[in-house]
Amino acid sequence: MSETTPAAGRPRALDLTGLHPSLADPVLDAMNFLNEVVARFPDALSFAPGRPSEGSFATEDLARYLRIYTEHLERELGWSADRVRTQLFQYGRTNGIIHDLIARTLANDEGIHVAPESVVVTTGCQEAMLLVLRALFARPEDTLLVSSPCYIGATGAARLLDIAMRPVPEGPDGPDPEAVLEGVRRTRAAGGRPRALYIVPDFANPSGASMTLAARERLLEIAAQEDLLILEDNPYGFFVRVGTPRPTLKALDRERRVLHLGSFAKTALPGARVGYVVADQEVIGPAGERSLLADQLSKIKSMTTVNTSAVSQAVVGGLLIDSGCRLREANAAAIAFYRANLNTLLAELDRHFPAERRDALGVDWNRPDGGFFLVVDVPFLADAKALEHSARNFGVLWTPMSDFYLGGGGESRLRLSCSSLTPDQITEGVSRLAAFITAQAAEAGR
Amino acid sequence: MSETTPAAGRPRALDLTGLHPSLADPVLDAMNFLNEVVARFPDALSFAPGRPSEGSFATEDLARYLRIYTEHLERELGWSADRVRTQLFQYGRTNGIIHDLIARTLANDEGIHVAPESVVVTTGCQEAMLLVLRALFARPEDTLLVSSPCYIGATGAARLLDIAMRPVPEGPDGPDPEAVLEGVRRTRAAGGRPRALYIVPDFANPSGASMTLAARERLLEIAAQEDLLILEDNPYGFFVRVGTPRPTLKALDRERRVLHLGSFAKTALPGARVGYVVADQEVIGPAGERSLLADQLSKIKSMTTVNTSAVSQAVVGGLLIDSGCRLREANAAAIAFYRANLNTLLAELDRHFPAERRDALGVDWNRPDGGFFLVVDVPFLADAKALEHSARNFGVLWTPMSDFYLGGGGESRLRLSCSSLTPDQITEGVSRLAAFITAQAAEAGR
Repeated sequence: MSETTPAAGRPRALDLTGLHPSLADPVLDAMNFLNEVVARFPDALSFAPGRPSEGSFATEDLARYLRIYTEHLERELGWSADRVRTQLFQYGRTNGIIHDLIARTLANDEGIHVAPESVVVTTGCQEAMLLVLRALFARPEDTLLVSSPCYIGATGAARLLDIAMRPVPEGPDGPDPEAVLEGVRRTRAAGGRPRALYIVPDFANPSGASMTLAARERLLEIAAQEDLLILEDNPYGFFVRVGTPRPTLKALDRERRVLHLGSFAKTALPGARVGYVVADQEVIGPAGERSLLADQLSKIKSMTTVNTSAVSQAVVGGLLIDSGCRLREANAAAIAFYRANLNTLLAELDRHFPAERRDALGVDWNRPDGGFFLVVDVPFLADAKALEHSARNFGVLWTPMSDFYLGGGGESRLRLSCSSLTPDQITEGVSRLAAFITAQAAEAGR
Repeated sequence: MSETTPAAGRPRALDLTGLHPSLADPVLDAMNFLNEVVARFPDALSFAPGRPSEGSFATEDLARYLRIYTEHLERELGWSADRVRTQLFQYGRTNGIIHDLIARTLANDEGIHVAPESVVVTTGCQEAMLLVLRALFARPEDTLLVSSPCYIGATGAARLLDIAMRPVPEGPDGPDPEAVLEGVRRTRAAGGRPRALYIVPDFANPSGASMTLAARERLLEIAAQEDLLILEDNPYGFFVRVGTPRPTLKALDRERRVLHLGSFAKTALPGARVGYVVADQEVIGPAGERSLLADQLSKIKSMTTVNTSAVSQAVVGGLLIDSGCRLREANAAAIAFYRANLNTLLAELDRHFPAERRDALGVDWNRPDGGFFLVVDVPFLADAKALEHSARNFGVLWTPMSDFYLGGGGESRLRLSCSSLTPDQITEGVSRLAAFITAQAAEAGR
């Protein structure tokens, strides 16, 4: 492939086909397309974005959290004003400056007990994903198993690094350990090396599904048996609708097979871009030298972002200190908000589509135990064209599920997110959605 | 290679040899080693880190800049308080929210006139490097030329992405266009495709060298002739010691062959982690559809960090607004400080090593026109062992130059940085360094 060669003095253009293949990939395009549709129809009610509610956040809180953090350094740790200044101004520790506060919070909120040195503070959970994938995947045969449908931040990062992937179909209770075992075996049979599995055990994006406790234990057993690492992503775990919170895989992990990825985007504020990964695995070098996987990730981080913004870490640090390192309690109002929203969404779907009508139309949806998302099966193609029609003529936006499947699937499913709407908006939005679905179903002959 | 397989129930360890090869690379190790030595000898005077002076920065400035930025949105742009809150709290535009302020500043400071949409705001310049390398390098034969010695942030990022590199030797005036041309031809002869050249035209890290205006023009000519993109990294351009600032390659670029990478780490504050890349190249898709390279980088950024911290962008945005988008003027005190420091460093070297003594010992150094760095040639191996000896017994730290060469070189050269020392520390530091060099030279028989 040759690039367009311009006449001398003319601006040079680049051929898209000469750029990295991920740029032509529908997974990366999907996010941009969604953003663009949302922007083009600003008056549509949107079940599309998984953005958190802004709750009681006020702009002034940023300065307040900064102050809480610096006062913590000065008063509780006895730092001089100069040292505080350097901490905020200067380059700093690659793996972060609030790792200790995060470790304390994980112990309080999740019963995850790890040394602060195992925690790598990252520029959002997305960077954590990138660091982990880069460290663990070395050779072309190294394969990432992903529960399917899968969050596109995971598959997209893997594509950036040209990592081989194998989708593992989710069951109604999320990732299915026996399907994972089958995926491991098929990967090996095809000459691949199953290196790690990416999953969201609680209220997954996009499906909303959650693993049972028994499935969590069985998955850890399989991981041990098959020498598989688990990349556990946990952005929504706090937001329980029914039942009680289940232990994370990391809290159950006795063999250090789980890398636990976390985010403050949903429980604090997305704009700070602070996430983390717990990487307490031991790494043994060729001469027997020992280090933590977190230390290895640090080398990679120095080549991706050098540091996570000290200003952002200070804001999140202040927020953690303000909560006594008990973020779950500090999220009580948010938990109640999302619970009510998901209940409203389910009730409105029930109201517009009672059981008989559901069967007649070929419409159905799942009932997640928590989180931001649920999935609706519809009797028509839920693709980009349908989305545009829905936005333009019915004033309602959603996300096509097919974007979340590797290698096909979900063509007649759509994801609804209720995290950033008010109850009234949900009520009105479902009413518009019902009109859209009914019209489309009629066109499809239902 | 098989991983260590533990007995059931025992924590699992990972073999370093099974992780990505970049983790075993000396380039990535070098940074960590340096940090570790600096930490182990806290009382040594350090010419090692390229960190900026903290100048007149005060912790309270963070809140002040935040306020300036939010007041700008409310008063000048007429935004509601709610909209300002969303801007700071929420996920936002992938390519950043202060791209317009950066474009205005580049026009004022550098005579670089580009549409704000060409500017991608990144988590430090390091992320800009990663995005650009990922977008441009698609196939194994795509080769990155790097001026050698080279900043390890560039070579390290390329290694993370398994990108082939070819070093191009620097001359006394920095990157040498004819050597670049030779490198292009050799790359082609070896079956590679010379895709881009990474350089720091002004006061390079590590050499301190700068390209003449004539060399800049010739390099652009060669880039046009050979269809080569130029990745211009410009962290130190403001900090002129002698003479007047020279135009950046981007300011001279009429064919959009230059991607201009910038950083606020040296001219504002490193802790915010805000950098950018100007990517105004046009990209043409298979069906003839046109986009900006900046738009393509956006897709990649959504898989590396999603957004640059809105909090950090607001701080840097406030600082830019406060300076009237004239950062060069706002850096007048910093420019004077670094100029004085580099002059002091040169004067002290001259004092300890007058010409005769220099010749007798086999010691020499360059005289950069600005920036943070200079390079000393010494008559002994300037390696990690020598550095430890220097720190322990002479109380002075520096950086081995060999870390900056791809494929060997610089074994008897050391880099001195004078950016974060006071004049008194420089005077004392050179005195210690002279004692160290003299002792080592004596041992080497000089």
